[in-house]
Parts: sequence; structure tokens; C-alpha cells
Amino acid sequence: MSAPTTAKAVGAPSATAALEPLAIERRAIGPDDVRIDIKFCGICHSDIHFARGEWGEIPYPAVPGHEIAGIVAEVGANVTAYAPGDRVGVGCMVNSCGECENCKAGNEQYCIPGNTQTYGSVDKDGTPTYGGYSDHVVVDQHFVLRIPDGIELDAAAPLLCAGITTYSPLRHWNAGPGKQVAIVGLGGLGHMAVKFAKALGSEVTVLSQSLRKQDDGLKLGADHYYATSDDATFEQLAHRFDLIINTVSAPLDIGRFLGLVKTDGALVNVGAPGEPLPVPVFGLLMQRRTFAGSAIGSIAETQEMLDFSAEHGIAAEIEVVGADQVNEAWERVLASDVRYRFVIDNSTL
Amino acid sequence: MSAPTTAKAVGAPSATAALEPLAIERRAIGPDDVRIDIKFCGICHSDIHFARGEWGEIPYPAVPGHEIAGIVAEVGANVTAYAPGDRVGVGCMVNSCGECENCKAGNEQYCIPGNTQTYGSVDKDGTPTYGGYSDHVVVDQHFVLRIPDGIELDAAAPLLCAGITTYSPLRHWNAGPGKQVAIVGLGGLGHMAVKFAKALGSEVTVLSQSLRKQDDGLKLGADHYYATSDDATFEQLAHRFDLIINTVSAPLDIGRFLGLVKTDGALVNVGAPGEPLPVPVFGLLMQRRTFAGSAIGSIAETQEMLDFSAEHGIAAEIEVVGADQVNEAWERVLASDVRYRFVIDNSTL
Repeated sequence: MSAPTTAKAVGAPSATAALEPLAIERRAIGPDDVRIDIKFCGICHSDIHFARGEWGEIPYPAVPGHEIAGIVAEVGANVTAYAPGDRVGVGCMVNSCGECENCKAGNEQYCIPGNTQTYGSVDKDGTPTYGGYSDHVVVDQHFVLRIPDGIELDAAAPLLCAGITTYSPLRHWNAGPGKQVAIVGLGGLGHMAVKFAKALGSEVTVLSQSLRKQDDGLKLGADHYYATSDDATFEQLAHRFDLIINTVSAPLDIGRFLGLVKTDGALVNVGAPGEPLPVPVFGLLMQRRTFAGSAIGSIAETQEMLDFSAEHGIAAEIEVVGADQVNEAWERVLASDVRYRFVIDNSTL
Repeated sequence: MSAPTTAKAVGAPSATAALEPLAIERRAIGPDDVRIDIKFCGICHSDIHFARGEWGEIPYPAVPGHEIAGIVAEVGANVTAYAPGDRVGVGCMVNSCGECENCKAGNEQYCIPGNTQTYGSVDKDGTPTYGGYSDHVVVDQHFVLRIPDGIELDAAAPLLCAGITTYSPLRHWNAGPGKQVAIVGLGGLGHMAVKFAKALGSEVTVLSQSLRKQDDGLKLGADHYYATSDDATFEQLAHRFDLIINTVSAPLDIGRFLGLVKTDGALVNVGAPGEPLPVPVFGLLMQRRTFAGSAIGSIAETQEMLDFSAEHGIAAEIEVVGADQVNEAWERVLASDVRYRFVIDNSTL
């Protein structure tokens, strides 16, 4: 059918170089493919870890971005669910094996041989994947999400990673009415977790290093806000929570946080520090507590999250930046100086 | 009613001294109390940790033993469930607050202020508790279990700790038909775990350091037996298990064992090393795995386990020793030289 296309992008030519304008190739549209004109792309901390080679060696140039919101431009012959003009999104994965027990059960995020990441992977056709810091992308229709009309595209973009990464464990561990849920860290992921936990009916507590963002936290829907720099917090909240979602990737004192978890409750990490975390097993044993992890969500659950967001008026709190401001935005992400997600206006590429 | 009684016991006069014959006082029988003539008492590794002061300072003399099987000798005025001559057991706890949400829900093992341990605690009346290395004990009726006729008292004793400690997590994490369950370590706890996991209908794999006890393991009901000293084990069994029960208290490489757990599966520790275990969070995150802990079981569940054991012809594999052989037996426990539980014949006190 169509030929490969050249996309305008912003990417890192090496692990240490600043991001700069680049041209990358997108594959020709296959029968199951959707070409999306990217309107906005969120900036996730993972983008930086990846591009800087902190998660292992990668091929350069690196074009990150897995919080993609845009408009369908063209579809392949087999595609009936999407048509040009549709508002769509793409998250952290663009393909999976489709054959393992997890893929068959619709849990592509846990594809056993490993799914194809939106950037830094090799897709089934052998081409490298490049992320959403670019003007268009070609994606298998199964990995395309529909963005409901009620959500602006810019504020929708971060739902594709920060949103689903927090929504999925809240659902899996049954956040809801009568449940005490704590969110550790009020950043890109944390602020989404607060909104979802509240909308699901839980009583929501933010556990943040300081009270600096307390006003924001309460405005976002938290019922309570505590500083973890204050030792009294750990006494006051002992045995309080059914579920704690830890959005902080830096190493935490897991033993202290486990002490805040009720019998049969769970502390769930959605970020992963590079080094193993020391876990005092008595803290698990004594109240049958769980320490667990969760990664994004399935495609079906991501669609459910988008629909839930539209229904409850939920979207990300964002600061929109131009393509020439991405280096500066990355600096500010590293300094935790963003409330709460940068989103690139891809029309400025 | 009755007066306090003097019991013959074997205990440790200090953290370093050998066990020796002692006399201890048991409280007068209150209206809710049951006095039990102890016939047999299992030797648990915890007895040694406790008596040697390895879990913190304790008052001496220390009289351990929380795998108690005996015959009711006398009951208090309010006791209708038990009568003299009944075959009964006592496990790791002899009281709890009775008022916290866990006690009210029948989860005395997770009593929030902390339950009264069979030895080394202070009971509600202010008297110190002494364990089952003695000729009789006085226990609140709620913490007395009925030993079904089908189980010999000597082989029943270890069910009260080693049995319930493994039965409870197998039930809680739904071991049963169609489930792949692994048991790490084939000792006192591990051999009970194999029997229960098999009787519950799971496919059972033993993961032991070597193949030294393989014949035993298969005889006890395991379907498969692998040596964890062989690196190939971790490749062959990757992503295999719904549930791994880790009965080993020594530090394990948790990351390697997590690799054997399926998506949404759990690695559950029933022993706790003194030092925190390093847990690689990516190993949890990537397949939504759980690392959890479990401590004994509730009183109701302990009774269920005893009834289940009688129904399925399950009891502990034991080596009966006299009261004068306890020091030697402890040495052999420390050397892992027991198949699979020492039980004291308390008539030799």
C-alpha cells in the first residue's frame, strides 16, 4: 500500500547530548495499522531514564514519548474500528506476541516474551520503534485507544502512561467505597492516583515528603495529607491503609510504609528503583501483608480508564511546552519542578 | 476455685546454658480455663531462637514449646466445649485482646495489640507464659483445639505450629486443583506444606538446596523435586508457579525465586530472616507479582486444619525423644538433621 514516511521528531543523538530536531522513518501502513498525527505527547520520567541509557544500552538516536494523543490520519485495509479524524491515543506498548497465555487473556502488558515498547523496542517487522516526540506514528490497531470527546487531547496524553499505571493497581487491589487508600508521592503518577482513588470512592491520603503541595493535594481530591519527613506520621497512621500505591521510584524505607498497612493489605510499587529494596519480612508476616508491583495496564483496561476519566471529568494537570523547550522541561522533571505533567505541543515540531 | 499448680518442665536457665529440669507455676484454673496434661510437645526451630535470646531479651528460665498435644484434666466453670479426657492441642498463642477488629473477625493470630504467645509472653492475669516442655498447662478455652480421633497425639503435636503455618497460606492463596505450588525447603514446615498442598489438589514441586531428600519428598506427595543449587532449575521453572511457600528462614535470593512465579502469583514467606531481604522491584512489577508473609493461622482455621488432616490421613513425620534428649535434639535441629520433626514424650519429664 503506502510507502514509509519521514517524521519530524525531537530526540537524543547520544546518552549525554541535548535533545535536538531529527528526522525518523515510520513504516508503511500495513493492513492492521493506523497512522496517527500526534497532537500532544506527555513527558514521563521514563523518557529520561531511557534516553540517558540508565536502563541499559540503547540504540541512538532515541526518540522517547509514550503518552501520545492525536488524530487518525489513515488506516489499513483491515481496520474498521478507527477512521481518519478519530481522536486516539497510544501508551507504553505498540505490540505484543499475541500468543502467550497473558496476551490471550488480554493482559498484553504482561506478555511473557515481552511486549513491544512504544520506543526503544524492535517491532514485529524488524523496525526500531520511536516514541511520541514526533509528528506522526504508525501503530497496530489493537494498541490504539479511543480518547472520549469529553477529554481535551493535551490533558488526555498523560492518561496513557501516568493514568493507566495508577488506575490499574487501584482497580486490581479493589480501591473503592470503605477503603483507605494512600498515595506515596504527588508527582505525575501520584496526582493521577489521587484523582482515580477518589473517583473510585476510597478515602484518600497523600503521603508526601513535605507539606509543600498540600493545598494542591486536597484540591485534587485527597481527604488527608501527611509529611513522611515527620516521624509522627508513621505513628499516627499505623495499620491504617488497605492499599498504598507507591509512585516514588527512589528507594523508600519499605518497612516503615508496611507498618501503615492493615492486615491483608498491600503496598504496591508502580515505580522501580534500580537497586533491590530491603524488605523486613516480619513486617509482611505479622499482618499477612503484601508487597507487590504493577506495570501499566492492559489495552482493554486502558480503554476502560479513558472512559472512566471522561465520565468523572478526570484528566491530567498539565503544563504545555513547545518542542524547543523539551530540554528545559527535562531539567525541571529531574528537579521535580512540574505540577504535574509536561505535555509537548507537537504542532511546534 | 483451684490453686496454682507446680509443673515439671525442661527449660533454659540462661541464653547460653543447656536445658535442664525445672519447676514452674501454672495459674489456678479460672472459669474459662482448661488444664491439659501434656502428652507430647513438638520441637520447633523458634524454640531455640527464643530461648537463646536471638529474638530479643527474654526473662529466664525459658520454657519453650508451642506444639502441644495432650488430654484435658480439668475445666473451669464456664467451659462446656471440653471435658476431662478430651484429646486437645495448643499452638503458638494462648490469648489475644479479643477486642480489636482482627480478634473480632476471628483472626487472633493478627491481634493488633499483639496476642499472648504460648511462651515468653505475659498473660492477661499478669503471669508469664511457659510452653509445652512441661507436664501440664492451663489455657483459656478459646485457644484450645480439638485433636480428632484419627490422629495420634505424638504426630498431631507438630500440626499446631508447623501444620497451621503452612496450611493457612495454602488456603489463603487458593492452592487447589489446577494450581502449581512450590515449597521451598523440606524441613519441619516444608514437609507439612507438601502434604497439605497435595491433599488440596495442587501440583506440588519441592525446591530444596540439594536432591538429598528427593525420595522422601516424592513419598510425601511432591510431584516434582528440584535442587536450587543447580542454576538450570531457575531457567527450567521460570514463570511456572501460582504460589511459592518459602519455609526457609535463612536469606534467599528473592529475585531468583520471583522469576519462578507466574503473572499475579505470590511468593509467601512463612519464616523470617532477621535481616531485611533485598527485593528487586522490577521482578514484582513486570508480572504483577506479590511478595507476602503469613503467620500461623486463626483458631478456627487451626481446627479446620486438624479436621482436614484427620480426613486426609495427614500428620507430621516425627522422631520421638525423651525429656533428657532435648539438648541433643536441639543440636540436631540446628544441623538440619531431623526427618522431619522432633517430638518430646512428656511422660519422661
